[in-house]
Amino acid sequence: MSKRYLIISADCHAGPESPKYREYLDPQYRDRFDVELGARDALMDQMRRERFGTAENVFAGSEEFQEEWFGVDEHGESLHEIGLRGGWDAKQRDEELSADGVTGEVVFPGPDAVTGKMGAPFGAGFAIDSTADPELVLAGARAYNRWAAELCAESPQRRAGLIVAPILADIEGAVAEITRAHGEGLWGGVIIPAQWGEYPSYTNYRYDAIWELCESLRLPVHTHSGPAAHADYGAVPGVLGLYATETVWWTARPMWFLLWSGVFERFPGLKMAVTESGSYWAPDMLWRSDSLILKDQGSRKLDDSVKGLLTMLPSEYFDRNCGLGSSNTRRRELARRYEIGIGNIMWGNDFPHPEGTWPYTKKILREAFWDIPVDETARILGLNAAEFYGFDVDALRPIADEIGPTPEELGQTDTAAFAKWDDLRAAGRHWLTGKEAVPVAP
Amino acid sequence: MSKRYLIISADCHAGPESPKYREYLDPQYRDRFDVELGARDALMDQMRRERFGTAENVFAGSEEFQEEWFGVDEHGESLHEIGLRGGWDAKQRDEELSADGVTGEVVFPGPDAVTGKMGAPFGAGFAIDSTADPELVLAGARAYNRWAAELCAESPQRRAGLIVAPILADIEGAVAEITRAHGEGLWGGVIIPAQWGEYPSYTNYRYDAIWELCESLRLPVHTHSGPAAHADYGAVPGVLGLYATETVWWTARPMWFLLWSGVFERFPGLKMAVTESGSYWAPDMLWRSDSLILKDQGSRKLDDSVKGLLTMLPSEYFDRNCGLGSSNTRRRELARRYEIGIGNIMWGNDFPHPEGTWPYTKKILREAFWDIPVDETARILGLNAAEFYGFDVDALRPIADEIGPTPEELGQTDTAAFAKWDDLRAAGRHWLTGKEAVPVAP
Repeated sequence: MSKRYLIISADCHAGPESPKYREYLDPQYRDRFDVELGARDALMDQMRRERFGTAENVFAGSEEFQEEWFGVDEHGESLHEIGLRGGWDAKQRDEELSADGVTGEVVFPGPDAVTGKMGAPFGAGFAIDSTADPELVLAGARAYNRWAAELCAESPQRRAGLIVAPILADIEGAVAEITRAHGEGLWGGVIIPAQWGEYPSYTNYRYDAIWELCESLRLPVHTHSGPAAHADYGAVPGVLGLYATETVWWTARPMWFLLWSGVFERFPGLKMAVTESGSYWAPDMLWRSDSLILKDQGSRKLDDSVKGLLTMLPSEYFDRNCGLGSSNTRRRELARRYEIGIGNIMWGNDFPHPEGTWPYTKKILREAFWDIPVDETARILGLNAAEFYGFDVDALRPIADEIGPTPEELGQTDTAAFAKWDDLRAAGRHWLTGKEAVPVAP
Repeated sequence: MSKRYLIISADCHAGPESPKYREYLDPQYRDRFDVELGARDALMDQMRRERFGTAENVFAGSEEFQEEWFGVDEHGESLHEIGLRGGWDAKQRDEELSADGVTGEVVFPGPDAVTGKMGAPFGAGFAIDSTADPELVLAGARAYNRWAAELCAESPQRRAGLIVAPILADIEGAVAEITRAHGEGLWGGVIIPAQWGEYPSYTNYRYDAIWELCESLRLPVHTHSGPAAHADYGAVPGVLGLYATETVWWTARPMWFLLWSGVFERFPGLKMAVTESGSYWAPDMLWRSDSLILKDQGSRKLDDSVKGLLTMLPSEYFDRNCGLGSSNTRRRELARRYEIGIGNIMWGNDFPHPEGTWPYTKKILREAFWDIPVDETARILGLNAAEFYGFDVDALRPIADEIGPTPEELGQTDTAAFAKWDDLRAAGRHWLTGKEAVPVAP
C-alpha cells in the first residue's frame, strides 16, 4: 500500500475569463451575450440590491481578506494572481492542485467566487437559475460544457468534468446536451438546478428521462451550494446571514425529493451528489427518515403509505445512491462520520474559492484529520470519490505517490489516538444498531 | 428541595368537539361554520388527495395502532375513550395529566391528531392556514380563544393557554384579538402562522406591532409543527415521508427569520418557542449561524453586512429569546443538550396526541433520562418552561409533590452514571469554547 494519500477534490471550479465564452456559444446567441456581458456589473448591482439590500459586493470579505486574496507582497508581487489563473489555465491548474496535494478533481463551473463576474452565460452556472429563459440557459450551458470539455481533455485522468444541464423546461434539450457533452469527454456527471421554481418538483415523473439517461451513462446528478429562497428574505440588513444559514438546506433538498419519490428505486444505478453543502445534516435526515419507516413513537400514527414506493430504508438508498461533496470537511462532521457513512463523504478543496482550503489544504487537513484512522482518511479524501465517479485509480496512483501527503504529514503519528472513536464506530447509526451514541463513562 | 419533579408539558392540545365551536363564534359566522362542518369530511378527503395522493387518512396508523388507540379491552371497555375526553373536559384533563405525572401544561388547539376532525374553525388551528380567508380565520381564532379561556379558567395555575393569532393579513385585527384574549386569561403566549404564503415574510417590519405587543404583554410567540410545502411534493406515493421529513424545518424557520432580521435586537424581551419540532436541529443552526459572524474558514469571504442588525452572536439571542417545545425529547437530543443549551429545552407529552408520550410518559421518561443529572432533568422537564412562560412555581409545587415522579422512578439511581457527560458538558458549544465535542480516549 502506498504511503501517500490519493486525494481527489470532489468540489473544484473552472471557467474561462468571461469574454472567452463568446466563441463557445452558438453564433445566434453571441449578440445577446455581448449585451449581457456589457451590462453584467449593473445586473450584479441590481441583483445584490434585490437580494441583500446593498449594491456592495457582500462576498468581498473584510479588508484583511481582500489584501490576502488580491494583494501584493513586499516585493510588489501578486499573492494569488498566478494561482487564480488556474481557474482556466490547465497547466497552472495542475500545478496548483499538485502543490495542494490534490491528485484528482471534480470540475464545476464558476472559478471566481469573490467578484462573481465569471459565471457561465445566461445563468448556466453551478447554481442554475430556474427563472432563466429556457433557450438561453441551455445555450449558456452548451457554451460552458464545450469549454469544460477542452479543459478536461488536458490531464483527463485527473479531471471529472461535470455537464451543466438545465433540465426544468426543456427535458429533450437537456437529454440531447447531456448526451453530446458526455460524448465530448465530460464523464463526471451532471449539474441540475437545486430549485425548480415554477416547474414541477423532482417528485414528478416527467424527469424520468433524465434519471434514466444519467443512470445508463453512469453520470451522477449534482446540486451545488448557492441557491436559496431570496424572495422570502426581503432586502433588509442581515439577510446575508439568513441566506447563508439556509442555502445548505435548499441545495440538499432535491436529494430527499428523489429519495422519497422512489427515483432511486426506479433507477437503482442512479447516483446523486450534494456538493459544498457540508455533510453535518445527513445524520439527522437519515435518522428522521428511517424513523418514519420504522415507526418510532413519534411516527406510529402514520399509515403504511409512508413507505411509498420504497423497498429499503432511506439510509440504505443513501448508502447505495448518494454521495456528499463535503468540501472542507469539518471536525464536527468527522465526529459524525459513522452516522453519515464513512463511504459517503467526499472531501474537496473548492479550488479556487476562498471558502475552500486552497492553498492551505495540508495545514487544514492536519487540523481536522490528525486523529482519524488512516483507512478512513483515505476513503474520505479520495477513494470514495474515485469509486463514486469512476476515476482510474491505477492511472492516478503515480501522481499521488509524488504529491499526496503522507499520514505523518497530516499529523497521524499517534495511532493510539484512533482508539477514541471505537465507541462511536461500534454505535454506528444508533437507530439501527440499538447502541448508544453518547460517550461512555471513563 | 422537593423529591418529586415539577413537570410542565410545553406541548398539549385542547379543543371542544367540533359542533361546540358554533356558540363561540360571532353570530355572523355561524351559517358559514355550519356549511364548513357539514362538508368537513369531503373537504378532508379532498385535502388528502391533493397533498398525499390518497383520500385515506394517512394519520390513522396501522391496524395495531388503531386497536390500541380506539379499541376496546376484553371486557368491551374502551381503552382510551375516557382519557381522550380530556381533550375538552377540564376535570378529566387534570386527571389524565396527573396520572401522567404532569403538573402544568401549555395549551395549543387541536386535541385530535388522528382523525383530524376537531380542528378550530376556518383553518385557525395550531398550524394556522396562511391561505385562509383573513376575516374567517380571525373569526375562527376568536372562537377557539374564547373556548380556551374557559378551559384554562379551570385550574388556571396549571394551564398556560395560548392565543391563536393569524397575523399575516390583518395586523390590527390580530393586535386587537391578542389584547382581548390575554385579558380573558390566556397568558401563555401567541401562536403565529409558521408559513406566510403570499404575505411578506417575518423579516418585514410590518409585523413589529405584533412583536411589540407580545413583548409588552410577556406573551411568547409560537410556531407549531404541521406546516410544509405541500405544493412542492406532488401527490405521488411517498410524499407522506417527504412531508414528515420537512415539516420540522418549515416549523422552525420563522425563528431564524426573526433572529437574523434583528427582531430580537429591536425587542429584547420578546420570546419565541418552536413547538413539537424537536430540538436536534438547533446545534447545527447555532453552529452555522455563529460561524458566519465569527468568520470561520468557510465564511471569511462574507463582508461585515453578515452581522446585519445584530450586536450579539445568534446563539446569544437564542439563549436569551428562544425556547424549544421539544415534546418527547429523544436520547439523541439529550446527548446534544449542552449545545442546544440546557435552559432552552422544554419537554412535552403532546397530550392527547399519539405521537406524544401520554399515557406512557413515566416509562418513556425513564428510557430517556435514566442517566441525566437530576438538576438538568428538572430544568428540561419543567423549570425551563416555568421560567419561559411565567408559571407560578410556588402554586404548582404542592401538586407536583403529589403527582410528579421521583428521580428514582425515572431510574436515576446510579448517580455515578452522570459522570459520562462530563466531557460533553465541558465542551459545551465547542465553536465558542474551543474544546472538542468528540469522546476522548479512555
